[in-house]
Amino acid sequence: MSPSWIADRTKAFDSSGIRKVFELAAKMKDPINLSIGQPDFDVPPEVQAACIEAIQSRKNGYALTQGMPVLREKLQAQVDAEYRHADRKVFVTSGTSGGLVLALMALVNPGDEVLIFDPYFVMYEPLVSLVGGKPVVIDTYPDFRLDMDKVAAAITSQTKLVILNSPGNPTGVVATPEECAALGKLCAEKNIALISDEIYRKFCYDAAFASPAAVNEQTIVIDGFSKSHAMTGWRLGYVHGPAEVIDTMIKLQQYTFVCAPQPVQWAGAVAMDVDTQPFIDAYRRKRNMIVEGLQDLYELTVPGGAFYVFPQAPRGLTGTEFVARAIEHSLLIIPGNIFSKHNTHFRLSYAAEDRTIERGIEVLRKLARGA
Amino acid sequence: MSPSWIADRTKAFDSSGIRKVFELAAKMKDPINLSIGQPDFDVPPEVQAACIEAIQSRKNGYALTQGMPVLREKLQAQVDAEYRHADRKVFVTSGTSGGLVLALMALVNPGDEVLIFDPYFVMYEPLVSLVGGKPVVIDTYPDFRLDMDKVAAAITSQTKLVILNSPGNPTGVVATPEECAALGKLCAEKNIALISDEIYRKFCYDAAFASPAAVNEQTIVIDGFSKSHAMTGWRLGYVHGPAEVIDTMIKLQQYTFVCAPQPVQWAGAVAMDVDTQPFIDAYRRKRNMIVEGLQDLYELTVPGGAFYVFPQAPRGLTGTEFVARAIEHSLLIIPGNIFSKHNTHFRLSYAAEDRTIERGIEVLRKLARGA
Repeated sequence: MSPSWIADRTKAFDSSGIRKVFELAAKMKDPINLSIGQPDFDVPPEVQAACIEAIQSRKNGYALTQGMPVLREKLQAQVDAEYRHADRKVFVTSGTSGGLVLALMALVNPGDEVLIFDPYFVMYEPLVSLVGGKPVVIDTYPDFRLDMDKVAAAITSQTKLVILNSPGNPTGVVATPEECAALGKLCAEKNIALISDEIYRKFCYDAAFASPAAVNEQTIVIDGFSKSHAMTGWRLGYVHGPAEVIDTMIKLQQYTFVCAPQPVQWAGAVAMDVDTQPFIDAYRRKRNMIVEGLQDLYELTVPGGAFYVFPQAPRGLTGTEFVARAIEHSLLIIPGNIFSKHNTHFRLSYAAEDRTIERGIEVLRKLARGA
Repeated sequence: MSPSWIADRTKAFDSSGIRKVFELAAKMKDPINLSIGQPDFDVPPEVQAACIEAIQSRKNGYALTQGMPVLREKLQAQVDAEYRHADRKVFVTSGTSGGLVLALMALVNPGDEVLIFDPYFVMYEPLVSLVGGKPVVIDTYPDFRLDMDKVAAAITSQTKLVILNSPGNPTGVVATPEECAALGKLCAEKNIALISDEIYRKFCYDAAFASPAAVNEQTIVIDGFSKSHAMTGWRLGYVHGPAEVIDTMIKLQQYTFVCAPQPVQWAGAVAMDVDTQPFIDAYRRKRNMIVEGLQDLYELTVPGGAFYVFPQAPRGLTGTEFVARAIEHSLLIIPGNIFSKHNTHFRLSYAAEDRTIERGIEVLRKLARGA
């Protein structure tokens, strides 16, 4: 086969470093796995029951492109109640990734600049490149907070879009209402589209969640059930935003993702009524365990949300070097350069059993002390 | 909002005509619906049971990007047994559409020409355009068979890829082993990639299915469970082909579809052992009903597979005009121009209950006679 068969766009993609760690994990015996970006709890039983009921009552065919009314109308009512925007429309996607892919396809022309905040979720940069956009990275070290001066300075005549992710992966940092308002207003003034990736919105531990959509009616919000209801393998997300953008995304969905799985959509409607507070409370406790276990020995920003902490590697080690040492001690964590232009930090997920977190803290304390 | 927010690439897409008919159908009272591209039978009970068992045993998290071993290894063994190609690798996709999107992203550079046969499946043209390719349409009217002279004449130095769909949607025509061999050899000689969309392969009524992969080891085969196991809303497909192409598609999947739904993959492994012959026999009988009911009054090519027939509109009417009249008689069918540069035919799906097919034949006979 001629190597020329492979399209040039694929060169923007590397096999994700996270996946390499997962593959390593599969080979290790009893690893202390703090690398996983999904909850350690199971899909709530009533949500499982709803999916099973849908399967058993012939709800297995194609869903409507925009989503089954049972879910979409309920989401629309929730969104309307929260924002009261005249032009805010919702549709159902194949996970938040599906929403993100369609949003970028719908909005980004080749050559358009897209602002993303470093550290960033791993998909943002390659997906922007996939649609021919130019990722423009805004450094948020050392405190991982939005700096509106830096944003303003990064804007050019080519800037099309800003992507915000709060609570953030990998830092767990939650944007304040003031930061969200400032970013939302700046984008509105400059007529720049704003995507708010809110997949971790339910995981806020210290203050209420804030969205830039509260001040910017044209914000495109990406959300889903994967993290809040442990449905990562069920592929159910949703997007809401200005009707013209949403209608374009629905049109693109017809020819790409087709629809989110139908039985899962019926389950999603039930999931909306599940009280997730016990999960959030459990994760707050886990967050506290990690912070208390590490903050005297590690430089770290206390995360207000999601289920990650992003400490600096100790003793001048790069993130990659430190992770290699951690793996020697059976601890699986992710080097920061997977999410960043810097290679100085590491991501630890506390979506794990308490015993695993305890074992992880033990290893990390040993490593910080130079063992 | 500025209209300039919407990316140029989205202009290649129209809201699918099929969807417009579906929306019309939703408003009609007791329509005779012969427009649906999915089986009228339900997911087999043992497959439902396997999905439910997976949901209840915590198989709800992310699947491996390439697919869960329970399914992928079984598919690989099946593919190896059929083809015995040294370099043929399989992975699991989010439906056949997911496989098609990833294949085009992996193979087509902007400006590359992609040959497709008219009539064509509705996604081919817009998806080729989405990745910047140039669709080159080869007319197969009136018998909808492959003409290798036309293919050879359409090939230029820019030709990158040919897409074959047999059994075909919308015509139901099945390529012979000789046609497949000729196309496979021509592509190999010219170093042109060949995608074989085999989603209807189990639906062959008069002769065994033939794939160009039998003679062309580098054929990229797209297949899935949607049609054969009535799992259209479960989003489970797979692709096999040269390892370099498949590895590139897996890399792209990480950043787009992420994975096919996990519980559905466990069900897919069970689906592989289900005897689908009773469904095929039932559909052969339905095919015969339609052909016998229409062939004295309609110009039609007897379909050897899939579950469609593609007759010519009678009395000089365009496909669109004829479908409008059918809809006045509560009969839902799809105008041929949705699948074609010609507007002379219509697609009828016999994936329906016998009583619905009988009512449809009755209306069509009346319309052919000028009622």
